[in-house]
Amino acid sequence: MKVAIIGGTGYGAIELIRFLYNHPYAEIEAIISHSQSGQALGTVYPHTSGVLEKPLEELVVKDLAERVEIVFFATPPAVSKDLAPQFLEHNVKCIDLSGDFRLRSPMDYQEWYGSPAADESYLEAAVYGLSEIYGEEIAGANLVANPGCYPTATLLGLLPAVQNGWIEEKSIIIDAKSGVSGAGRGTSLNTHYPEMNENLKAYKLGQHKHIPEIEQEIGKMAGHPVKITFSTHLVPMTRGIMSTIYADIAHSVSTDEMIDMYTAFYQEQPFVRIRRNGELPATREVHGSNYCDIGLHADKRTGKLTIISVIDNLVKGASGQAIQNMNLLKGWDVATGLNYLPIYP
Amino acid sequence: MKVAIIGGTGYGAIELIRFLYNHPYAEIEAIISHSQSGQALGTVYPHTSGVLEKPLEELVVKDLAERVEIVFFATPPAVSKDLAPQFLEHNVKCIDLSGDFRLRSPMDYQEWYGSPAADESYLEAAVYGLSEIYGEEIAGANLVANPGCYPTATLLGLLPAVQNGWIEEKSIIIDAKSGVSGAGRGTSLNTHYPEMNENLKAYKLGQHKHIPEIEQEIGKMAGHPVKITFSTHLVPMTRGIMSTIYADIAHSVSTDEMIDMYTAFYQEQPFVRIRRNGELPATREVHGSNYCDIGLHADKRTGKLTIISVIDNLVKGASGQAIQNMNLLKGWDVATGLNYLPIYP
Amino acid sequence: MKVAIIGGTGYGAIELIRFLYNHPYAEIEAIISHSQSGQALGTVYPHTSGVLEKPLEELVVKDLAERVEIVFFATPPAVSKDLAPQFLEHNVKCIDLSGDFRLRSPMDYQEWYGSPAADESYLEAAVYGLSEIYGEEIAGANLVANPGCYPTATLLGLLPAVQNGWIEEKSIIIDAKSGVSGAGRGTSLNTHYPEMNENLKAYKLGQHKHIPEIEQEIGKMAGHPVKITFSTHLVPMTRGIMSTIYADIAHSVSTDEMIDMYTAFYQEQPFVRIRRNGELPATREVHGSNYCDIGLHADKRTGKLTIISVIDNLVKGASGQAIQNMNLLKGWDVATGLNYLPIYP
Amino acid sequence: MKVAIIGGTGYGAIELIRFLYNHPYAEIEAIISHSQSGQALGTVYPHTSGVLEKPLEELVVKDLAERVEIVFFATPPAVSKDLAPQFLEHNVKCIDLSGDFRLRSPMDYQEWYGSPAADESYLEAAVYGLSEIYGEEIAGANLVANPGCYPTATLLGLLPAVQNGWIEEKSIIIDAKSGVSGAGRGTSLNTHYPEMNENLKAYKLGQHKHIPEIEQEIGKMAGHPVKITFSTHLVPMTRGIMSTIYADIAHSVSTDEMIDMYTAFYQEQPFVRIRRNGELPATREVHGSNYCDIGLHADKRTGKLTIISVIDNLVKGASGQAIQNMNLLKGWDVATGLNYLPIYP
Repeated sequence: MKVAIIGGTGYGAIELIRFLYNHPYAEIEAIISHSQSGQALGTVYPHTSGVLEKPLEELVVKDLAERVEIVFFATPPAVSKDLAPQFLEHNVKCIDLSGDFRLRSPMDYQEWYGSPAADESYLEAAVYGLSEIYGEEIAGANLVANPGCYPTATLLGLLPAVQNGWIEEKSIIIDAKSGVSGAGRGTSLNTHYPEMNENLKAYKLGQHKHIPEIEQEIGKMAGHPVKITFSTHLVPMTRGIMSTIYADIAHSVSTDEMIDMYTAFYQEQPFVRIRRNGELPATREVHGSNYCDIGLHADKRTGKLTIISVIDNLVKGASGQAIQNMNLLKGWDVATGLNYLPIYP
Repeated sequence: MKVAIIGGTGYGAIELIRFLYNHPYAEIEAIISHSQSGQALGTVYPHTSGVLEKPLEELVVKDLAERVEIVFFATPPAVSKDLAPQFLEHNVKCIDLSGDFRLRSPMDYQEWYGSPAADESYLEAAVYGLSEIYGEEIAGANLVANPGCYPTATLLGLLPAVQNGWIEEKSIIIDAKSGVSGAGRGTSLNTHYPEMNENLKAYKLGQHKHIPEIEQEIGKMAGHPVKITFSTHLVPMTRGIMSTIYADIAHSVSTDEMIDMYTAFYQEQPFVRIRRNGELPATREVHGSNYCDIGLHADKRTGKLTIISVIDNLVKGASGQAIQNMNLLKGWDVATGLNYLPIYP
Repeated sequence: MKVAIIGGTGYGAIELIRFLYNHPYAEIEAIISHSQSGQALGTVYPHTSGVLEKPLEELVVKDLAERVEIVFFATPPAVSKDLAPQFLEHNVKCIDLSGDFRLRSPMDYQEWYGSPAADESYLEAAVYGLSEIYGEEIAGANLVANPGCYPTATLLGLLPAVQNGWIEEKSIIIDAKSGVSGAGRGTSLNTHYPEMNENLKAYKLGQHKHIPEIEQEIGKMAGHPVKITFSTHLVPMTRGIMSTIYADIAHSVSTDEMIDMYTAFYQEQPFVRIRRNGELPATREVHGSNYCDIGLHADKRTGKLTIISVIDNLVKGASGQAIQNMNLLKGWDVATGLNYLPIYP
Repeated sequence: MKVAIIGGTGYGAIELIRFLYNHPYAEIEAIISHSQSGQALGTVYPHTSGVLEKPLEELVVKDLAERVEIVFFATPPAVSKDLAPQFLEHNVKCIDLSGDFRLRSPMDYQEWYGSPAADESYLEAAVYGLSEIYGEEIAGANLVANPGCYPTATLLGLLPAVQNGWIEEKSIIIDAKSGVSGAGRGTSLNTHYPEMNENLKAYKLGQHKHIPEIEQEIGKMAGHPVKITFSTHLVPMTRGIMSTIYADIAHSVSTDEMIDMYTAFYQEQPFVRIRRNGELPATREVHGSNYCDIGLHADKRTGKLTIISVIDNLVKGASGQAIQNMNLLKGWDVATGLNYLPIYP
């Protein structure tokens, strides 16, 4: 099966390329880059030289629609909302790594993204691509809204407890930390090496675009609207997200009971690993892989649950999950082309 | 004035030495190291070679008591609780960087440190050395219990709000992050470079020794016992602590009002800097210095206050504050020998 | 085909495990660890939990010899020299990642390793496993001495020029730099995170064990003994080796001619990539992969050639090359199970 | 004494500000920034907030010349060559941290910097500000050309051996490595955190602007023109330069003799520290300080001398040496305001 990647020079794209290069059934037909079209991929990413010789192409929708079955959008906000519908009209399925189709409510999009939302019919048709939760819906979808990096780590860590009613939703606080690759390949003073090395920065307290996405999904699972407190931090490392999640335990539940329940919840899911009591996951332990590792601690002294959920932001938080969703769309085993051990150390 | 440092080969000691080397009134008379006695400081710390030529000495209490006026303990837990009383009997003042005299309750010490507490009379006589809060008591003390690194960042960030009754104490959650130097100079797999680089680890959820210390001081300010939720994380950097603190706002208070109140609270204190609305401090911005920078965000949407408090764990979180306390003890300006800009970048 | 790994808890082993896990023809039958036998691999390396559930076994040569066809030694110096012969007697082929069989001269081994060499008959039988140079010999070998990390980067960068007589061998200077994982998983003050982060260290000038190995191979290609100047440095990163190599150009040769010659030399080799004129490889561009990337600069002003050769020390410098040698031994395509793009960023 | 800094928002400037803030005799009268004039320093560098409240000013030469005695230029290439003469005409002394007055030969400047050199009379009047070598000339100068970062580490490491005729100048090879702050505060893909973290890059082989500067000074000491081979590398750390220098030993000289000679050469110089035999300096050991630490290894086996010379590129390699030169200009002790221990760890 042939696929195309639009937005071919960002980190989302290059990570899609890494996994697709070894995928047994999918083949990269075209890599589209508006800013670098005409150049070889190896010029923009020398690490691909001599391995994957591909030109970066300018986008011509009709032409591309005839060449491929699925298009991945690894584009900045407000690009796919106009382009994806054009491909859908040509019966090309779309997996969108941007946030353009994640929020059901156009008003929420307008408020948090600062520009008009995609056409409402597409927002309704889009399936939120959290693979472990919406596997069935994704299998039948034409348009998959691949989740954000922070929401992926956070929701996989929270949803079992929410579904079981074991925590008070209104008490949820999420202290999220990300490696710097989450900011993309565009340069800025914030991500300039000497400014970010040996540094730890908080940013966008209560203002991150991923807040409505998390609230939408928790609210859906809870059956009523939920507001969360969500903070983000930049950590001096390239990859990795950790969400440290706090919530009041609704009933008296022990750490072991929590672990058993989470383990059962994800029993069929190869990429979520629940850690043993007393063992907390570190971001390095999922580095380069599609795993989400979750540690749980129910504190008797304070009645609080603390959840540690880690992913590689570029894999499970972006391109890996997009491949997983492609597998679901095509009815392949979800782990096809993703079945690798983390890289350690 | 002559001082001695006991525990001379750890990071606390070497940072004391850095500041004392340029202190206008204090002079290092002796550096005591049990494990390395007889060696030159420059053998253990080559960066001091040719600048500060000192032998590391074995401890002889009586002899040392005659040579110095103040002793700094930069020792592991359960060392100073026996040694400090011996110096106090010889009328030598003690500034203890370990946790042995921080907790008023011997039972708390036993529970969290796992060994018997110091003699209760010394626990009562000890003054908790959070310089900005207890300046007057420190001035008259013989034994100063220098605060832990996490408690310093956390308490300076929390106490103004607690004093004013602007937050619900029982809602307090502290998500703390530290550079790796906080683990000391002793080697372990956890702090082995390839394991810790490009990694982010949570550890000791709800079990850190600094919990009772923070609860003691918040409870004292609040006038009633308080339990907090406290998590710690290791960040791939050498220095720096950030405490991200969450609490329910008791009354409707804006970010600007919070900032004004905090600014007034620390008006006389040169080392606490309250940031402007919208500006959040990063650990790099206090690197190598004695500053504690605090950013505040009162979120109208959720009714939560988020406080970002950053320090250099080895300076304001240990040796810098110890010097500040020495200045208070001696009646010198608190900034004496500490009046440096952070090192940036 | 079933294989075993001896020395199962070091970085060499865990990287072998990563590649073998996805190798289409080879299967890990046993992981041997003397120090941790009885434990699960997931206890020692939590990132493998739930993916590869294997116990660490104690070594029983005869038993293991019946279960596997090839044994990989990822052991410290002076272990395999006694063990490998025992497996060879049972007709089990051995790929040794340690230095025990690399040097032909027992005296050199004694001098540089400080202990007696392996039995001379085995030294003679061993094939030096620099895959690109000795592919044919490796195909017929029973015992492969997998090259050291520094020698791999250095020799791949130097040998084409030596073979062609385009440089003066006696002028060769190698300034080598390595990530810290090269020092292994054993802890030490040198590799303690706060000591090594934001630091650059030179070590073992002219005294590194890899010197005789490099000299042996250059001398063999040159047809006469060669002495090199070789320096090593620890760089604050986990993975990656760069050898910056200097030599006097024997005849007037331009950068373009050098590049053409190198390209021809490695024409059949999928894992050596010669960079275009003006493009210098960085270690990140081979991260996690089996590639060796080489950049060349012939300086007209000074008559010197500078060669930049980079590898991932744990892959092409150890475990990846070991897999490549297994492929050669078995007559499989050399790239089997190694055919991955570097991980970027 | 009042001074001004021109180019006030780069790393050179902020490091000048750090040292001048504590200098006992000098005072910062004005900080000039063309790009950010009108803003507060604390807006551009939040770590100075509340400590040093200064507006960034637009440059008005005549006005500034009346307010200050010395001007520091921390400007990009080709700025000071026009501005410094204007200040000199007003009898304001200039210390130029850029390369505009370092090369005696206008043709060399044109060739390596790609733009016309400063007026030749000023090139002749300028004193090369390598403090340890030209202390007397600097004392009487009006215009000091502060050395480049790489030349400082390299020349301090090489000049004693050159002066004594103990090495063959034509054999000199310098493998230099720098932290990323050497590239300045301007952003680029090269210095984008995810590209530079966990990476090691060679750049500008044989083409760096610092080559003619090093050759000029070695040639001057040797008494005849010298050509060197010089390579530069970016290391994933913020600060620090290491020059690993190779040369053929002219006569049979041991490491101990080398060390004695170097120690004697720098006997009067507080900021150069010669390490003991067997001890090699690491960049961390001079971090944040004005020291240059030098290790020596004369290899009997190969007849080569290896010199390891380390500095903090922003201190001894830029702003620290500029302060040292100001001290020389004014006849103050050279260590005034620079007399600090390195920051470790």
